[in-house]
Amino acid sequence: MKKVLVTVMYKDSVLDPQGEAVKGAVHRLGYDSIEDIRIGKYFEILVNEDEEPVEQVIEEICDKLLANVVMESYHFQVIEEGINQ
Amino acid sequence: MKKVLVTVMYKDSVLDPQGEAVKGAVHRLGYDSIEDIRIGKYFEILVNEDEEPVEQVIEEICDKLLANVVMESYHFQVIEEGINQ
Repeated sequence: MKKVLVTVMYKDSVLDPQGEAVKGAVHRLGYDSIEDIRIGKYFEILVNEDEEPVEQVIEEICDKLLANVVMESYHFQVIEEGINQ
Repeated sequence: MKKVLVTVMYKDSVLDPQGEAVKGAVHRLGYDSIEDIRIGKYFEILVNEDEEPVEQVIEEICDKLLANVVMESYHFQVIEEGINQ
């Protein structure tokens, strides 16, 4: 069993209105040291190991389902279960 | 300037319906090796360093705005800008 941590973010060239809104809220709370906020999605995926390499399965799922690759980019990191739990 | 990576997840004891839905979709695509998916929020925050320690500012913002600490837990990691960019 492996755990995969996936982050999906808008590409830098794409405006992130949700992040802009949260940045405004943070400033209204008085935290003026916050320069920028960008918001993305985060997935923790548990994968049973079988024939196929975990990396390949995760890339396919990200491309097909988790990310809109036109506007978003994704990164993932595979960690062995048992280390963290 | 420091960059802070924040992840906010439902606590393990809280049902994550969005994650369940995505798990169902992944299974319908034929990826049966996926055991579980949980979904959270991800924030990349740029902070100007001033008097207050960055960790304290981020904890306050998470508690007040980014996470509902009754149902969600958050983790963050501070990285120096300039290393990644």
